[in-house]
Amino acid sequence: MADKKQHILLDHGGGGQLSHELISGLMLPAFRNDILAQLNDGALLDIGANRLAFSTDTYVVDPVFFPGGDIGELAVNGTVNDIAMCGAVPLFLSAGLVVEEGFAMADLEKILASMGRAADAAGVKVVTGDTKVVPRGVADKIFINTSGIGQIHAGVNLSAEKARAGDCVILSGSIADHGMTILLQREEMAFEARLQSDTAPLNFLVARMLAASGEIHVLRDPTRGGVGSALNEIAVQSQVGIRIHEDRIAVKPAVAGVCDLLGFEPLYVANEGKLLAFVAAPHAEKVLAAMHEDPCGRDAAVIGEVVAENPGTVVMETRIGGSRIVPMLTGEQLPRIC
Amino acid sequence: MADKKQHILLDHGGGGQLSHELISGLMLPAFRNDILAQLNDGALLDIGANRLAFSTDTYVVDPVFFPGGDIGELAVNGTVNDIAMCGAVPLFLSAGLVVEEGFAMADLEKILASMGRAADAAGVKVVTGDTKVVPRGVADKIFINTSGIGQIHAGVNLSAEKARAGDCVILSGSIADHGMTILLQREEMAFEARLQSDTAPLNFLVARMLAASGEIHVLRDPTRGGVGSALNEIAVQSQVGIRIHEDRIAVKPAVAGVCDLLGFEPLYVANEGKLLAFVAAPHAEKVLAAMHEDPCGRDAAVIGEVVAENPGTVVMETRIGGSRIVPMLTGEQLPRIC
Repeated sequence: MADKKQHILLDHGGGGQLSHELISGLMLPAFRNDILAQLNDGALLDIGANRLAFSTDTYVVDPVFFPGGDIGELAVNGTVNDIAMCGAVPLFLSAGLVVEEGFAMADLEKILASMGRAADAAGVKVVTGDTKVVPRGVADKIFINTSGIGQIHAGVNLSAEKARAGDCVILSGSIADHGMTILLQREEMAFEARLQSDTAPLNFLVARMLAASGEIHVLRDPTRGGVGSALNEIAVQSQVGIRIHEDRIAVKPAVAGVCDLLGFEPLYVANEGKLLAFVAAPHAEKVLAAMHEDPCGRDAAVIGEVVAENPGTVVMETRIGGSRIVPMLTGEQLPRIC
Repeated sequence: MADKKQHILLDHGGGGQLSHELISGLMLPAFRNDILAQLNDGALLDIGANRLAFSTDTYVVDPVFFPGGDIGELAVNGTVNDIAMCGAVPLFLSAGLVVEEGFAMADLEKILASMGRAADAAGVKVVTGDTKVVPRGVADKIFINTSGIGQIHAGVNLSAEKARAGDCVILSGSIADHGMTILLQREEMAFEARLQSDTAPLNFLVARMLAASGEIHVLRDPTRGGVGSALNEIAVQSQVGIRIHEDRIAVKPAVAGVCDLLGFEPLYVANEGKLLAFVAAPHAEKVLAAMHEDPCGRDAAVIGEVVAENPGTVVMETRIGGSRIVPMLTGEQLPRIC
């Protein structure tokens, strides 16, 4: 236990309890400012007459190439999505590469081409960059930071603090695809299941949703830590209770099978092309209808609701009719998932 | 030689010839867009009625703590300076950390506190962040990406393409302090010389300069690759010749001594608190006077001039009265300098 306080552990980067302690204990005191303290997926900035969203993420995924994508596509989509979750149109990205000496030029070329295609697909431009090469053994293959700037849709004010009792909780599709895909690759497990990462840009889906309703309160993409951690964060920040229904949360059979076998709870497994939306109940139907028109929202469903009781807590009604608390994730399930 | 084409070498990140080949050969084709293609220290963006500068850099310096600063201070100042070189007021930074499992919490705390102090000193806010923890051995201690947004001063249009024959080349102070400090630390050399990094935010110096004259054409901070590489980049991008005078370029005696002893050419050694300015000759005096008022510009001097002959080439008149070409750096002098 002493070590927890004295050294950085994998858990500190896992998106769960220790990550939160690191942020509240070290980051917020070091950088104390109101914007950071909002702890949204990106920062909401007023510059002149513009309302901008600004976000950053470093991708250290292992392996670099995986079914359904690669680190380059992930790095573009991930930051595009963080910007989109702020209710903004992503416009510009930066790319900061750390490459290990000896990395194959052909692989770098594939990764950069993949970033370029992903940027085109999402309608953003990679406008500035930096490349550091470090000696062999100083970094594993390649890490990519992307930071992004987006313009917040007029009249939109989303924040993780804005969930209200009565809101419907919408999930855009099946969960745990990305995390279990990476795990299978890494362990070189000989499963027959052909899983595939769900990495995708969600900005067009978000634009449809925001056009359909002015009563969307929170958007969040459940990446590291999964749906379970994202819901807990929102429950805490909005000081509300959240009730979800296990039988409404889609998990593909192959993904569910691998989770079962390996003892992973899909609720905590990373997604890279899914979002959670908190919507005033009377607007849920039209938001859902808009989502169903988009390839990334075809399987969107209401999976739960916000309640006034037990603020800060997420409760799941299980398939067998019971109910249990879904705690904040403690312990890193899987390092280098993104 | 075959390997050069097939694998990433340290030189690809050194800021010299191979870095440029990597950028022109892989980055520009992958991300093809006009903004990136300008190859300034940051991207110049029009968003609504705002003109913004956007820049990114990842810091992998080894050691993490060094005389005169640490990786946290360097990461803030470095991106503040890239934004300032675009003629912008730096406003907001992101911080993306990759930390090795087992890194001492006390060191992380020191680094974050140092980032916070540097941000305060430069008048910027760290508004969004990300922390990845990777298993022991996957990254060496800590890497920090900072990206930044600034607002371009009204009426200012700087670009590496804007140097004109007749411009004076101003250098803000002595060179090679940062690079030689890091080298001495790393090699644990028992020199008596007490070198110190020059890491500093240059945004206030730049604001004074821009207030003093509307005829500043280019600003550049000569970091990786040093003054020699920065001048070559500008000579190529502006298609002009540059002539500099060795006896006007300040190198502190202790720094010069260490460079001599170890065979380093100070012109190619990294600086982290210096800038080069290209200024229309009639304005040079008033720009210099403004610089001398600022702690970061106290030793500013005109070190050369832009000429029409030999576009793309930098020539130095040496102390002994000869002249020689200062080529683009080939080969990485020193990895992990920033």
